[in-house]
Amino acid sequence: MPVLTDLIAAARREQSVDLLVRDVRLVNVLSGEIHPAHIAVRDGVVIGFEEYAAATVVDGGGRHCVPGLIDGHIHIESTLLSPPRFAEVAARHGTAAVVCDPHEIANVMGAAGIEYMLAASAGLPLSVFVMMPSCVPATHMETSGAVLTAADVRDFLDRYPERILGLAEMMNYPGVLYGDPGVLAKLAAAGGRVVDGHAPRLQGPDLNAYILAGPASDHETTTVAEAKEKLRKGMHLFIREGSQEHNMDELVQALNDFNSHNTSFVCDDRLVNDLVDHGHLDAVLRKAMAAGVPPLRAVQMATINTARYFRLHRRGAVAPGWRADFVLLDDLPTFAIADCYLNGRRVAESSFAADVPFSANTMRIAALEPEALRIAAAPGRLRTIGVVAGQIVTDHLLLEPKIAHGMVVADPARDLAKLAVFERHQASGRVGLGFVTGLGLRRGALAGSVAHDSHNLIVGGMSDTDMIAAAREVVRIGGGLAVACDGVVLASLPLPVAGLMSDAPAAEVQDGLQAINDALGRLGYALANPFAALSFLALPVIPALKLTDRGLVDVARFEIVPLWVTD
Amino acid sequence: MPVLTDLIAAARREQSVDLLVRDVRLVNVLSGEIHPAHIAVRDGVVIGFEEYAAATVVDGGGRHCVPGLIDGHIHIESTLLSPPRFAEVAARHGTAAVVCDPHEIANVMGAAGIEYMLAASAGLPLSVFVMMPSCVPATHMETSGAVLTAADVRDFLDRYPERILGLAEMMNYPGVLYGDPGVLAKLAAAGGRVVDGHAPRLQGPDLNAYILAGPASDHETTTVAEAKEKLRKGMHLFIREGSQEHNMDELVQALNDFNSHNTSFVCDDRLVNDLVDHGHLDAVLRKAMAAGVPPLRAVQMATINTARYFRLHRRGAVAPGWRADFVLLDDLPTFAIADCYLNGRRVAESSFAADVPFSANTMRIAALEPEALRIAAAPGRLRTIGVVAGQIVTDHLLLEPKIAHGMVVADPARDLAKLAVFERHQASGRVGLGFVTGLGLRRGALAGSVAHDSHNLIVGGMSDTDMIAAAREVVRIGGGLAVACDGVVLASLPLPVAGLMSDAPAAEVQDGLQAINDALGRLGYALANPFAALSFLALPVIPALKLTDRGLVDVARFEIVPLWVTD
Repeated sequence: MPVLTDLIAAARREQSVDLLVRDVRLVNVLSGEIHPAHIAVRDGVVIGFEEYAAATVVDGGGRHCVPGLIDGHIHIESTLLSPPRFAEVAARHGTAAVVCDPHEIANVMGAAGIEYMLAASAGLPLSVFVMMPSCVPATHMETSGAVLTAADVRDFLDRYPERILGLAEMMNYPGVLYGDPGVLAKLAAAGGRVVDGHAPRLQGPDLNAYILAGPASDHETTTVAEAKEKLRKGMHLFIREGSQEHNMDELVQALNDFNSHNTSFVCDDRLVNDLVDHGHLDAVLRKAMAAGVPPLRAVQMATINTARYFRLHRRGAVAPGWRADFVLLDDLPTFAIADCYLNGRRVAESSFAADVPFSANTMRIAALEPEALRIAAAPGRLRTIGVVAGQIVTDHLLLEPKIAHGMVVADPARDLAKLAVFERHQASGRVGLGFVTGLGLRRGALAGSVAHDSHNLIVGGMSDTDMIAAAREVVRIGGGLAVACDGVVLASLPLPVAGLMSDAPAAEVQDGLQAINDALGRLGYALANPFAALSFLALPVIPALKLTDRGLVDVARFEIVPLWVTD
Repeated sequence: MPVLTDLIAAARREQSVDLLVRDVRLVNVLSGEIHPAHIAVRDGVVIGFEEYAAATVVDGGGRHCVPGLIDGHIHIESTLLSPPRFAEVAARHGTAAVVCDPHEIANVMGAAGIEYMLAASAGLPLSVFVMMPSCVPATHMETSGAVLTAADVRDFLDRYPERILGLAEMMNYPGVLYGDPGVLAKLAAAGGRVVDGHAPRLQGPDLNAYILAGPASDHETTTVAEAKEKLRKGMHLFIREGSQEHNMDELVQALNDFNSHNTSFVCDDRLVNDLVDHGHLDAVLRKAMAAGVPPLRAVQMATINTARYFRLHRRGAVAPGWRADFVLLDDLPTFAIADCYLNGRRVAESSFAADVPFSANTMRIAALEPEALRIAAAPGRLRTIGVVAGQIVTDHLLLEPKIAHGMVVADPARDLAKLAVFERHQASGRVGLGFVTGLGLRRGALAGSVAHDSHNLIVGGMSDTDMIAAAREVVRIGGGLAVACDGVVLASLPLPVAGLMSDAPAAEVQDGLQAINDALGRLGYALANPFAALSFLALPVIPALKLTDRGLVDVARFEIVPLWVTD
C-alpha cells in the first residue's frame, strides 16, 4: 500500500518518483481534452503531469496516452480461460480492470466457484472485480450444481467489500415483476450497492417496475428506441460487443453531448480466439472510432464512465492520486497499442502467475451407456430445436421421426441430430433427450461440459455410439470439449476448471479449440463457433425450444414439454 | 418508507399512484433530452412517465419539468436563517437538497452545533446533507468555541451514515502539504468518503500533493486556467455564485462537451436578502442560461452532477425509482418557477415546522466596559486594515494615529474606525484591538457576533461609547447584529441560534437586516452588505491584515503582529 506522506513528498519533489513517462498527449477523460503531459508515478499511483526526478524515465515520443480500459460486464468463463490466463491476454490489450459475473462457475460449484474466481484473480496486475451472481440456478427446469440464496449474497458482500461490487445481472425479471420473495430478498441483500440489470425488450410500465426495484444498468438492449427509453429512465447503458452479440452500430446512435457519460462499452462473452486475434475493449474502441464516435467519448465509455457506474473511485482516468493504469498508443483512431502500464508497471514486465490450483473434478456423473440415448418409436411428431445461425434463439419445430429397428435415430439427410443433456452435478443419471436441426453435422458427435446456464454435459450427434464416445472423453478429461466419429475421439480440449475453463495459456487453448473446429470441419460442420452454438441449446431462458437434463423446455410456456406431439 | 412491492404493483398499474402530473416537457438530465412525459408518483418516488390512474391529477400544461436542484456547498449559517427557515425559502426556489458545511456553528459550539444542525433539518421536505467540518478551529491565532479532532470526524461519520457525506472543505492546505499529522488523521477519518477541497490558486506540484491526499472538489477557483488544471487533475469543479463571490462568468468558459459532468453550481454563502429577493440556485441557472450555457447542461450542473459527486443515489433526476423532487417552469430560459414538488408533495402544501428549540446562550462573555477599548498613545504608526469594496481580502496599511487626551481615537475625517474583537466563548475578557479604514462609517458603531471563523464579538465604530453600546446590545439579545449612536441602540437583529442564525421566518429576518442597514445608512455607511464586510475582518486565513481576539494577524506571515510599527 502506498504511504500517503511519501506520495505527498514525491508530489512536492521532496522524494523521487518511480517512473516518468515524458512527452505524451494525454487523452484526459476528466477535463475532456487531449493535452501534453508527462506521467509521473510512484508506488502505483499517478503523481502529476509535471517534470519529476524519476528512477526510470521513458520517452513517450508524443504518443497518445489513454487510461487503462475497464470492462463493466464480462463472464470470464466464456473466454474458456482461467482468470489469470484471461488477465494476461486482456492486459496486453489495454485492459486495466474487469467487472465479472461468475455466473457460470457459480451454477456449477456455487460459493466454492465464486471463491475460486476471487482467489485465482487476487493480486493480478489487472484488477478483477466481481458481481455476485443473482440467478443460481437460472430456472427450476434444470439441475444446476448449486443454489445461492439471498443469505449467500449478503455473506459474500460482507466478506469481500473491496472486490464484490454488488449484485450481478438480475435475469429473472419476471421474478422482479411478480414480486417473488426470493428475488426481492436478493435485491434487498445488495444493500444499496450496484445492481446490474438484464432486461431485453422490457418497456413501459414493466420496465418502470423493474428499474425501481434496483437494477441500474442494462446490457441486453439492441435498438435505439430501447436504448432511449432505458436512458430516460435512468439505466446506465452497457453497449455490448461480444463474440456473439454486436450492438454497437445500432446503439451509438442513441448518444448525444449530454448523455454519453451514462453509457459504457462491455463485452459480456468473448471467446479466447476473439480475444487473442482481435483483442478485448481495444477492438471495441477501434470499431467505435471507425463508426464516428469521437475518440474522447469512446475512451470515456471504456474507462471513467464504467468506473463511475461501479463507484470505483480514482480508477478509469489518469490524474494525481489515481491508480497508474494507462496505455500508450502508436495511433489513436486505430487504437494501436505501443505499451501498457498497470499499477505503474509495464505489463510486459509484470507477473500474472497468481493462479491457484484447481483440484476438484466437477464431472460428477453416472456411467454413460448408449442405452441411455435410446428413444423408442411412438406415434406423432418430434419437437425439434431449430438452430438459427449466429443467434442464440432457436425455432420450435415439429418434424417426422426417422425410425430404425423400432427406435428413433438421427437423420443426416435432414441435418437432424440427436441431442442429449446428462446431469453432471449429482451423478443422478438423469438425461434429457431431444433432436436438433441446423447444427450442420454429417456424422460423428460433439460433446461439451459448457452448457448454459447449468453446464450439464451436452452432446449432439448422428450416432449414439459417437455421442457416448465424445461424452466419455469429456468426462475423462475432467470437463471440456470433445469430438468423436466412428467410435474414435478425434479431438478434445480439457477445461478442467469446473468443466468451463482451462488453466493453460491462451495460445494453447486457442490451438485446442482450433483442433476441435478442424475435426468438426472434417465431419461437415459449418457454423462459426460450433461449441458456442451447442452451449446455448441448454439455456431455457432464451426462446423458443431448449433441452435440459429434465427434458425439452418450451420457453414461451416456461415449462417442460414432452418430446412427442400427437395432433 | 415506501414499500417496494407496493411501488412495483403501482408501476404495473395493479395499484394506483398518488399523483400524476400530466403533459410536461421533461428536461431529462439522464438521457440528455427534453421529451414529453407524464410524471407518476407514489410514496414520494417517481413511478414512470406513462398514463397512470392517480389519486391526484395535475395538468402540467406542457410546462418544462426539471429535477429539484441540489446545492453541493453552502453554509446555511451565512443566510442568517436556521435550517428550517432557510429550507422553506430555498424549497420555493426549486431547491430539493443542499450539502451544507456547518463550519460556522461548529466553531462556536463544536459537536453540539453540528448536532443542532442535524436535528433542526431532520425530516424536512428539502433534504439537508452535512459535510463534517474539517477546520475547527480554523487557526491557532484566534479563540474558537470548540476543537474538533479526527476522532470527532470519525464519530460523526459513524453515527450519521445517511446524512453526513464526508469531510468538508479542507481549508488547511498548508497542513496537507506539510503532512500535519492532525490534518492527515482527519483525511484518514473520512474513510474513503467524499472530501471537499478548498485550494485557491494552488497549482503544479503542490496541487498534485493536495489532490492525492484526498480532496476531490474545489469551489475557490476563479480563473479559466485554474479551472482547467483542476479539471485535468480530477477535481470536481464547483462554480460558485454566492452573495459575495461570483465566479460563473469566468468559469463557464472551461466547459466543453466532454467535461461538464465534472462541474456543478454552488452558492457557498448566500445572505437572506439575496435568497428572498433573487433566489437560490434558480437565480444561478437564470444567469447561466443567459450566459449561453445550454439549458440541459446548466440543469445537469445544478442537479445530477452534484448528486453523482456526493454519491447520492437516485437523486438529482426524474426517473422511475428516484426521489420525486421536481420543479415545473413557466419558462425554461428564465427559470420562471410555476410550482415545486419535493418528495412527491407540493412545497406550498408541505410543512417546514421541524425546527428544534435552541435554548443555549452562546454569548459567554465578560462584562463589556469602555476601558477595554482604550489604546494609549505611543510612538510610531498604526497597522490598519484597509477594506477593499466587494472583496474579503484587505489591505495591510500603516497610518498615523489620531491622538486625543493621550489616547488613540477613531478619525471620521479619514474614515478610520476603531475595531475590537471580544472573545465570547470562554468569558476570558480577552479583546483584540485595531483600526480599519474603508467601512464608510461617519459616527456611531456596529457590532455583530458573526465574525468568521471563530465568531467572536466584532465591533467597529467611531466612538468607544457607541461601540460598547452596540456590543452590549448584541450580548443582550443573545447574539446578533446591532447599530448604536450617541449611546443609543438604533437597530438590532437577534441571531439567538449560536449568535449566527435567527429562527424567525426569512421575511422577518430580512426586515430586521434592512432596519440595520437603514440605521447604518443614516450614519453615513455606504457598503452594500455592511455586516458581511465586518464579519470577514476577523478571518485570519484571507490576506492581508485581520483582527482576532488575540490581536492583529499578518496573514502573509501567518502570525500575530503588534499594533504599532516604529520605523
